[in-house]
Amino acid sequence: MFNENIYKARRKEFVSRMQALGAEGVAVFLGNGEAAMNYSSNSYRFRQDSSFVYFWGIDEPGFAASINLSNGKECIYADDVDIDDIIWMGPQPTVLDKAGKAGVDKVSKYADFDTAVRFALQNDIPVHFLPSGRYFNRMKMAELTGSTAAQVYKTAPYDEADYVHSSLEMVKAVVSMRLVKDDAEIAELDHACDMGVQMHTIGRNGCRLGALERDLAGAMDAFAATKGWGVSFPTILSQNGQILHGHDHSGVITEGRLLLIDAGLTLDSYYCSDFTRTLPSSGKFTTMQREIYDIVESCNEFAFNMVAPGVSYRDVHLATCRHMLCGLKDLGLVNGDTDVMLAEGIAGMFMPHGLGHNMGLDVHDMEDYGENYVGYDEDQQRASQLGLGSLRMARKLVPGNVITDEPGIYFIPALWEYFRKNGLDKGFVNFDKLQAYADFGGIRLEDDILVTENGARHLGTTRLPIKSAEVEDAMKQ
Amino acid sequence: MFNENIYKARRKEFVSRMQALGAEGVAVFLGNGEAAMNYSSNSYRFRQDSSFVYFWGIDEPGFAASINLSNGKECIYADDVDIDDIIWMGPQPTVLDKAGKAGVDKVSKYADFDTAVRFALQNDIPVHFLPSGRYFNRMKMAELTGSTAAQVYKTAPYDEADYVHSSLEMVKAVVSMRLVKDDAEIAELDHACDMGVQMHTIGRNGCRLGALERDLAGAMDAFAATKGWGVSFPTILSQNGQILHGHDHSGVITEGRLLLIDAGLTLDSYYCSDFTRTLPSSGKFTTMQREIYDIVESCNEFAFNMVAPGVSYRDVHLATCRHMLCGLKDLGLVNGDTDVMLAEGIAGMFMPHGLGHNMGLDVHDMEDYGENYVGYDEDQQRASQLGLGSLRMARKLVPGNVITDEPGIYFIPALWEYFRKNGLDKGFVNFDKLQAYADFGGIRLEDDILVTENGARHLGTTRLPIKSAEVEDAMKQ
Repeated sequence: MFNENIYKARRKEFVSRMQALGAEGVAVFLGNGEAAMNYSSNSYRFRQDSSFVYFWGIDEPGFAASINLSNGKECIYADDVDIDDIIWMGPQPTVLDKAGKAGVDKVSKYADFDTAVRFALQNDIPVHFLPSGRYFNRMKMAELTGSTAAQVYKTAPYDEADYVHSSLEMVKAVVSMRLVKDDAEIAELDHACDMGVQMHTIGRNGCRLGALERDLAGAMDAFAATKGWGVSFPTILSQNGQILHGHDHSGVITEGRLLLIDAGLTLDSYYCSDFTRTLPSSGKFTTMQREIYDIVESCNEFAFNMVAPGVSYRDVHLATCRHMLCGLKDLGLVNGDTDVMLAEGIAGMFMPHGLGHNMGLDVHDMEDYGENYVGYDEDQQRASQLGLGSLRMARKLVPGNVITDEPGIYFIPALWEYFRKNGLDKGFVNFDKLQAYADFGGIRLEDDILVTENGARHLGTTRLPIKSAEVEDAMKQ
Repeated sequence: MFNENIYKARRKEFVSRMQALGAEGVAVFLGNGEAAMNYSSNSYRFRQDSSFVYFWGIDEPGFAASINLSNGKECIYADDVDIDDIIWMGPQPTVLDKAGKAGVDKVSKYADFDTAVRFALQNDIPVHFLPSGRYFNRMKMAELTGSTAAQVYKTAPYDEADYVHSSLEMVKAVVSMRLVKDDAEIAELDHACDMGVQMHTIGRNGCRLGALERDLAGAMDAFAATKGWGVSFPTILSQNGQILHGHDHSGVITEGRLLLIDAGLTLDSYYCSDFTRTLPSSGKFTTMQREIYDIVESCNEFAFNMVAPGVSYRDVHLATCRHMLCGLKDLGLVNGDTDVMLAEGIAGMFMPHGLGHNMGLDVHDMEDYGENYVGYDEDQQRASQLGLGSLRMARKLVPGNVITDEPGIYFIPALWEYFRKNGLDKGFVNFDKLQAYADFGGIRLEDDILVTENGARHLGTTRLPIKSAEVEDAMKQ
């Protein structure tokens, strides 16, 4: 994908960061295998491991790689094709040719990777590897290291004890690099966002009373598959926006509803986009809808304006929640001291998720490495409060960070009950008034932003319409 | 999906077939988990285990089930949702409600499945389960049974020793049932084929000089995702038809080429279709193309006419290969005694795959259970010869079998070299004449057929144009 010098420079930097962390031995990178759909030889579309792509650039199953941390020696492990492969998959360049494009001149058979890892462990040479959410990788690394699959991958939140088998140093070194995007990456992300805007435009243009959610989602997904690798995540396109990850598309676009579309496109390079817009089903917001919409839109703008190097995204999240509570107070849905409400986590009843997440080769960048290492600094502790507890990115921002800005307001009667039953509302919520919103749904507005030297900019060359009047105008066309 | 009585009847029949095979203890069915795309919480579209769907009808992750083979007692294991699930996925029916739709009235927590399996094994009660190609299932069953993941799933061909951990009796009982489709299943397959015909029509209508393969494939995939669960397998759409499973779509439709489209649609019920057509890029075959095309089309017709209860599909494969050799002999590409050529496997140089496979809930039905159990009778041995050795379905046909009829002729220079180098051509092949076909590509023509009481019929209400003149006519529109 990129020039081989980019991969070589990344690996060199990686080795020096590993050494700075005191890591010794060998670092290994296991590329992804195929993932069976319904039986072994019928696979989902192949998706390479993102860090494998980042450091080695090779986008095929059946690859692994190693770096000796003391002398920087590298090797790529994979098998050349035989006559059967040629019949089924066509002629292929050699492994040596493929390795050459990543700036590597030593290759070995795939099975030698297993031998190398086992040999190192038998000789007390530390073997560093990354956790992976792919079962193939977990099974393979568990087998090679004599661990259980659960030990080589623990779900977040992590603590250091979970890294007995996979490597905390390697997580830290990789995270420190991938969190800061270089110019080549930013160009890809800009392009992914441009494509993501086109994908969303297809959805918006299809939003007409009587249309099927399924047809809109299908047309958007087709665009993603045609112009890139595919969708960044299963498209959320629903008139029940209060369900945060609602993947049901069985609805018909119906008068008076809000259609929430949260969707992104992943390029062939795997750099991706992730936008959310919420549209009035008929093309025009009702007064009640517009009141809530404008609060969310104002929160999106408020957060964007606050983003700058040196600011922690946790502070942006909290200040945006405060801004939201002010808006809800104006509508009479909550009452009381705003700062006390904020501290008591009242915003979480309306926005039970975090303001945003890192984005790059993964739409939730590196989430499998443990959100507490990816999205949190050494001196930040994850909260348990609903909403803030789900914040995936809390770090102090630096130029090159790519994050989403995605406030939302959702009306979830089951959550109101939960708050009331557990006394979490602390008397701040006007439940009587809330009843009128029981069928409202939810609104989320999400942009992808780059932290720059002086502040931030939206990724991509054009921004999807976001102000309520702009959205209505766009839907007239 | 179907009425609960269908599932109850299937499970009752399953228990009686297991008993007839002498199986004791408990049979367990593990539904599929999610499969991570790039990180754990970002999954590919969920696909349920096909036998879980067949016997229990529940199409969600996080389910397992058991049947006591002595008394028929059943239990479904799954967890009800909590407030977090409601926030992210919306309100859900209870597990008991879902089980009720499968005719089951006993439910238990998902973790109880693990306990039940471990308890049975500790008490020497046999636990029968099916092999699975999904790594999640392999990991889980390996963990529960104290096996390695490789032991609970071995790639074909199997021998009985591989079933120490998974159950050969269960494979045999399930295969014997799922191979014979009932009326409800046939109705689904007819519908899947109708949708598959529409999907192919989109591809054919898009085939114009200068069009991008990628756009055609994208439009077909979008149709599959919009009208059903999605594609039955990654769409093959290529002007290099000689690559049997070529998933590259980077080409531009170019004068004088043949565009091979092998694609199918899977319904929400998971019943699927699988058709192949090969189109002249410009809408008109060249003489050379038509000569080969007409042989393949004649083979497709020849095979279809031979299909009837009592005939083995291995015999249909061989007779069709013989028919193909006659055609190739007429063109002077091979010379010699047709029966000797057939016995020497010369057809395999032109068609290095089998004539067809079983189809149903899986496009290669039950392939993970071992093709030698699915596609072969007790008294049939798998051949090693190229072509015949790849035949996935060799059995004596019975009414209700659903199979594909997919002869092909491919010109693969690397394979010619392989035959020549290893003396496999035995002097029958006219390599001089073959040189003119080095850039020809390949042709495959595939229909989905149902074995009936008296013979066979094509599934679906309309058949895709297949005769060379029909194809050219269809492309004029």
